[in-house]
Amino acid sequence: MRAISELGEKKVIETIVGCLDLMPDMSVPFGDDVSAIKLGDSTLAVVKTDMLVAETDVPPGMSLRQAARKAVVMNISDFASKGVKPLTVLVSLGLPSSLTEKDVEELGLGLNQGAREYGAYVIGGDTNEASDIVISCSLFGVCDEQVLVKRNGARPGDIVAVTGQFGKTAAGLKILLEGLDAPEHVTKPLKEAVLMPKARLTEGLALAEAKVLTASIDSSDGLAWSLHELSDASNVGFTIEHLPIAPEAVEFARKHGLDPWELGLYGGEEYELVVTVKPELWEKAEKIMKNLDVSFTAIGRATEEKKIELTVNGETRPIKRKGWEHFRN
Amino acid sequence: MRAISELGEKKVIETIVGCLDLMPDMSVPFGDDVSAIKLGDSTLAVVKTDMLVAETDVPPGMSLRQAARKAVVMNISDFASKGVKPLTVLVSLGLPSSLTEKDVEELGLGLNQGAREYGAYVIGGDTNEASDIVISCSLFGVCDEQVLVKRNGARPGDIVAVTGQFGKTAAGLKILLEGLDAPEHVTKPLKEAVLMPKARLTEGLALAEAKVLTASIDSSDGLAWSLHELSDASNVGFTIEHLPIAPEAVEFARKHGLDPWELGLYGGEEYELVVTVKPELWEKAEKIMKNLDVSFTAIGRATEEKKIELTVNGETRPIKRKGWEHFRN
Repeated sequence: MRAISELGEKKVIETIVGCLDLMPDMSVPFGDDVSAIKLGDSTLAVVKTDMLVAETDVPPGMSLRQAARKAVVMNISDFASKGVKPLTVLVSLGLPSSLTEKDVEELGLGLNQGAREYGAYVIGGDTNEASDIVISCSLFGVCDEQVLVKRNGARPGDIVAVTGQFGKTAAGLKILLEGLDAPEHVTKPLKEAVLMPKARLTEGLALAEAKVLTASIDSSDGLAWSLHELSDASNVGFTIEHLPIAPEAVEFARKHGLDPWELGLYGGEEYELVVTVKPELWEKAEKIMKNLDVSFTAIGRATEEKKIELTVNGETRPIKRKGWEHFRN
Repeated sequence: MRAISELGEKKVIETIVGCLDLMPDMSVPFGDDVSAIKLGDSTLAVVKTDMLVAETDVPPGMSLRQAARKAVVMNISDFASKGVKPLTVLVSLGLPSSLTEKDVEELGLGLNQGAREYGAYVIGGDTNEASDIVISCSLFGVCDEQVLVKRNGARPGDIVAVTGQFGKTAAGLKILLEGLDAPEHVTKPLKEAVLMPKARLTEGLALAEAKVLTASIDSSDGLAWSLHELSDASNVGFTIEHLPIAPEAVEFARKHGLDPWELGLYGGEEYELVVTVKPELWEKAEKIMKNLDVSFTAIGRATEEKKIELTVNGETRPIKRKGWEHFRN
């Protein structure tokens, strides 16, 4: 009998889903970033849960307040990628009984901060005794069925685009986890990227509202992983020809003889949006993001053939399904 | 600085709530069994999360399938006590990587069973690596604002009533945790009560729909604890004069020289409804439960004075705030 450390998270989820009676008439398929329930006419109730486990998800140097904030923000990022505004957060906490009252307060402040930064409220939850800190958040929001952007709508020819720049969290984690060093002006933003992640909520809501996206996901498990997920859901491939790597990550990579593309593709805990856009709507999408003063870069195209490749300087190499996967890392 | 093992769960929750910005216009106050969001006119979206941690919530003898089922059922019981039909369940799982594929399947089957027994569907979730099995469920449902029964509506003179009989899980836990013995015909139902708990969903929905309740809670932390919670929320006391103790629990108590009242009052993991009813609606409430063929017993009255007492055979003793509390047990 195989242990789940050999199976990996994807197979674990498949096994569980295989046990479930499927709800008839699901508006969002299993495996997308959120779940949804029809409320009548075209309104959807949108829900999402994701758990932070201190042992695996909280690097050294991250405070309890930051950990709690991150537990909320990583859920909000999934709502952002679907174009859904989160209204409320429920929090289920597992707490070791050795924590102090001050620790609990720090957790409470972080939860509130994570929610309020994005206009949501923590409205309930429960606490439990556990051997490690576990923070399970669940979000609720409401949206129009026509607005929610799923993973499965990308078509060959669509432009793939991303917000922001990549590689910072991968480099930041190397500093925090492996103790690699870097000059102060680089260390600070790289660590900050890990400790205080931001969700692209305004951007996701604006793009979805304007109906310019065919598919969307966030890059929380790494850009490469996200491309593979979009590829599986939409049944397309991707040719990537460009990738905005953060200058701090480039400098960090140079210092340590690392490949900046590797940092950008196979990192994780990076909450950018990875979206596909119909070519005829590209200009509109670009304009929306320019108005928001947000970096938005076309990085390639969706292709008929289900291959995911990086082509730079005439050289082509496969983008592997590699990134953050529980039970394997 | 006090550790939370000295604070107890109630104070931990207070500390966290103290850190939160409160959502304006909350239809259900913090600390009730569910949270709710107004969807316009009088419709509420109702949400709830509760976490099962194997170490503290799964006694020896409980299978993985039963544990997963219980994680769902304990959440459904809270919906039941509010009179809200659960539609969907999200599940956030923390799993030790030593689990096998078969273990994961057992968990999946238990989750599905817990949801389907009550007409709900598991529609999403996520999995994470953790040192102990953690199952955090969050429920979603919709109801009319006028139907949802809160904890805070009990008034002096109201009749307190309970479904079912008490003491079985307290006795069952003594068998499973402490290895106490009992004759087979008693052991089986007592263990069953712990391993396969049932939520009173049909009963809760029927009572709420008929608008006969002024307040309601389930007895998951023990009957005494539930009475104290109702007392705090409604600002009333209770005089309890009768308590339906399960005959199996009475037999078990007799064999081991235990007080059956103690088993009935201070147990926990027992998912009966504890409700208050206006005297003029008592007959109606009783009739509804008779039609459902469910045991429904008036156990006492709500009082002006905020004391909770048990009066039997002319003797009065206080009912203590004692029961299941995380970080203290």
